[in-house]
Amino acid sequence: MVRRLAAEAIGSVLLAATVIGSGIMAAQLSAHNDAVALLANTFATVAVLAVLINLLGPISGAHFNPAVSFVEALRGRMSWRDAGAHAVTQTVGCCLGALLAHAMFGLALLQTSSHTRTGPGQWLSEAVATGGLILVVAGHRKASEAPWLVAAWIGAAYWFTASTSFANPAISIARSLTNTFAGIRPADVPPFILAQLVGASVCYRIANFLFVPEKQKPVVGDTLMEKGL
Amino acid sequence: MVRRLAAEAIGSVLLAATVIGSGIMAAQLSAHNDAVALLANTFATVAVLAVLINLLGPISGAHFNPAVSFVEALRGRMSWRDAGAHAVTQTVGCCLGALLAHAMFGLALLQTSSHTRTGPGQWLSEAVATGGLILVVAGHRKASEAPWLVAAWIGAAYWFTASTSFANPAISIARSLTNTFAGIRPADVPPFILAQLVGASVCYRIANFLFVPEKQKPVVGDTLMEKGL
Amino acid sequence: MVRRLAAEAIGSVLLAATVIGSGIMAAQLSAHNDAVALLANTFATVAVLAVLINLLGPISGAHFNPAVSFVEALRGRMSWRDAGAHAVTQTVGCCLGALLAHAMFGLALLQTSSHTRTGPGQWLSEAVATGGLILVVAGHRKASEAPWLVAAWIGAAYWFTASTSFANPAISIARSLTNTFAGIRPADVPPFILAQLVGASVCYRIANFLFVPEKQKPVVGDTLMEKGL
Amino acid sequence: MVRRLAAEAIGSVLLAATVIGSGIMAAQLSAHNDAVALLANTFATVAVLAVLINLLGPISGAHFNPAVSFVEALRGRMSWRDAGAHAVTQTVGCCLGALLAHAMFGLALLQTSSHTRTGPGQWLSEAVATGGLILVVAGHRKASEAPWLVAAWIGAAYWFTASTSFANPAISIARSLTNTFAGIRPADVPPFILAQLVGASVCYRIANFLFVPEKQKPVVGDTLMEKGL
Repeated sequence: MVRRLAAEAIGSVLLAATVIGSGIMAAQLSAHNDAVALLANTFATVAVLAVLINLLGPISGAHFNPAVSFVEALRGRMSWRDAGAHAVTQTVGCCLGALLAHAMFGLALLQTSSHTRTGPGQWLSEAVATGGLILVVAGHRKASEAPWLVAAWIGAAYWFTASTSFANPAISIARSLTNTFAGIRPADVPPFILAQLVGASVCYRIANFLFVPEKQKPVVGDTLMEKGL
Repeated sequence: MVRRLAAEAIGSVLLAATVIGSGIMAAQLSAHNDAVALLANTFATVAVLAVLINLLGPISGAHFNPAVSFVEALRGRMSWRDAGAHAVTQTVGCCLGALLAHAMFGLALLQTSSHTRTGPGQWLSEAVATGGLILVVAGHRKASEAPWLVAAWIGAAYWFTASTSFANPAISIARSLTNTFAGIRPADVPPFILAQLVGASVCYRIANFLFVPEKQKPVVGDTLMEKGL
Repeated sequence: MVRRLAAEAIGSVLLAATVIGSGIMAAQLSAHNDAVALLANTFATVAVLAVLINLLGPISGAHFNPAVSFVEALRGRMSWRDAGAHAVTQTVGCCLGALLAHAMFGLALLQTSSHTRTGPGQWLSEAVATGGLILVVAGHRKASEAPWLVAAWIGAAYWFTASTSFANPAISIARSLTNTFAGIRPADVPPFILAQLVGASVCYRIANFLFVPEKQKPVVGDTLMEKGL
Repeated sequence: MVRRLAAEAIGSVLLAATVIGSGIMAAQLSAHNDAVALLANTFATVAVLAVLINLLGPISGAHFNPAVSFVEALRGRMSWRDAGAHAVTQTVGCCLGALLAHAMFGLALLQTSSHTRTGPGQWLSEAVATGGLILVVAGHRKASEAPWLVAAWIGAAYWFTASTSFANPAISIARSLTNTFAGIRPADVPPFILAQLVGASVCYRIANFLFVPEKQKPVVGDTLMEKGL
């Protein structure tokens, strides 16, 4: 359990540091060309997500995301108690990742974002982005494919949603602690998280309909793979 | 059959929402730098295509494209009746995807494009893009490689064709319903679809010549793979 | 043999059409931002190379490149007569690809480039780019990895060489037939081809030293794989 | 041993030539749009790293990096004497790669950078980037995945660190020999290398805690894979 939580913590720190740090770098270099900045931000996020899920997935599942741990508990793949411990660890880890990004770029460690992100379009965006992530989590057939599937989904959702796809309550909280490219005003976080959980719940049911019958067969192989064999 | 059509519907919604939504985001951020906007549009399309084909391919084939279902019927891999049901589902799904993109970005749900896309060069482009897609569909040897092959082909064709590669009758219709970056004037859609079907038919014959002899051997393995095993 | 040459021809047409067509599109959209244009040109080339090598490799080797066929003959993997037939087919195919790109973009079919590309730095660049390609061709251990290895090498060489890595005599000739982004003045082609062949020859010897001992073991598996099994 | 060192030398030359050459090309084309230049620099580095590790990994481990050879010696996977020979070869190779890049672009072969890169944020960045690389090196479970894991980590770290992730003492020294986009003032190199070694040492211990227990099982398979089977 200590190794599991350590893996979730390290992954959450590095994921948040990447999302926020690459946003800082991209905004500094791109001189207000926000499309180029978001392309760079997307690339870094996609690359690091794939690496972290590959490395840490066999240890902890590599959720780095309370919405994912919540659905894994719903699916009976982890206890609710473990899911709670994961969620706390992920949130603390992501917040420390914001501090790490600030430290690397020589910025004030403690910040509060003033970036407004609100409105029904953004909330719908968060529900769709998180729901799609749950389809990927519940529907993928080989653990070895999870890294690129999750990374590619999140990367696409950075662009096709109006909110640039936070899709993660822990990252949403951490991004309220940075007044940089990736930030979100603290007051805008709770509706984002609510939308994420609604999207996750709806798509959990869709995934049960779409994928469950077929998954009854290869469950053993899937589990073996998740142990890294 | 319900699960098959549900998979095609969900995939078509998300594919069209990605193509159109990422175009809206890219145009908003790039301030008229169309090359950067098309790069972002390409990236999002490629990423989501790979994810959706991986997730939904074992359920429905993950065509999301009446031209592909049409060729699969020609190849005897699905009945013409099923191909028709696929085509209707794909078209409705893609149109709903346009509405979803508009809803996420807070735009009017119902729109009509005024973006002119016409002329022999564009029609040739659509024939080449769709034809190449059929070569990929008919020629790939492992179902597990279809996601990246289809995604990479479409991504390349976004750039090397003059039409940015619609290559899909259902997406072509859906894109007439958005007056944004990805739009196409409704009057320009029928010749696009005609060109797509001509390209598909020609390349179906080329694929028969190029790939069929060799495919007689590993058909069993291929079919097993397509069931996700 | 007809299928082999057909595969080389189709691949060469589509490869050249992609290199030239994506250059036209990128230059049109990017409004003289050559870095963005070359990024798009690189992406399209990389994506289509990977697709074409995957699809056509089991049929013809998917060389699309006389320098590669030349080295395969040196390595005793094809007869010199076949290598000659490949080279002619590749060159004709690439030239037809230039015409196809022009047709798609509504440009004059027959053109001659006025883009000067000359000097020792560019020739050294071509030798390095082609030599590295030969290391990839001779050194890769699984046929299934050739698509991404070749594509990634060429993509990197578009940027780290001063010539943007033609690395292919057939493409070099075809690119002299387009007065667009990807063009090269006809007078500059012969030294490019000479440099490519020198680089290929030198790296063929390096590959013999680096890779041959180890390759004596898995040759059977490699050959089976090249047959698509 | 000669083949091992030849592989490290060739890989180090090509890696450094790519990092520096793509920086020169990107800066020339992007007209002071540093975000686009760094995107191109990142792409070329990622692509060439993946190719070189795939090709040369089975021969020499494809470290191209004294910090990695240092940790491999700590882990008992190579002798300290071999690690020293690797480090010297890597450093000489990377410096020759700088000369090769200059020769390709027609620049003065011998240069000294005047690009200041210093301060606690940059040093912390180097520690994090190198430490994460060590987690990848020590934690990956299949040798066949090392190419994309290392490449993706370095690519992400180009953006989320303030130093653009040198993460390699040999490359750091070589980059002091070029007064171009990728350069670093010679006086700034020693603290970069110190930070890299500190980050590597710390993460070696973290990797021992995270990964060692699990690795006791599949060691045999892993070793076989590292031999390219």
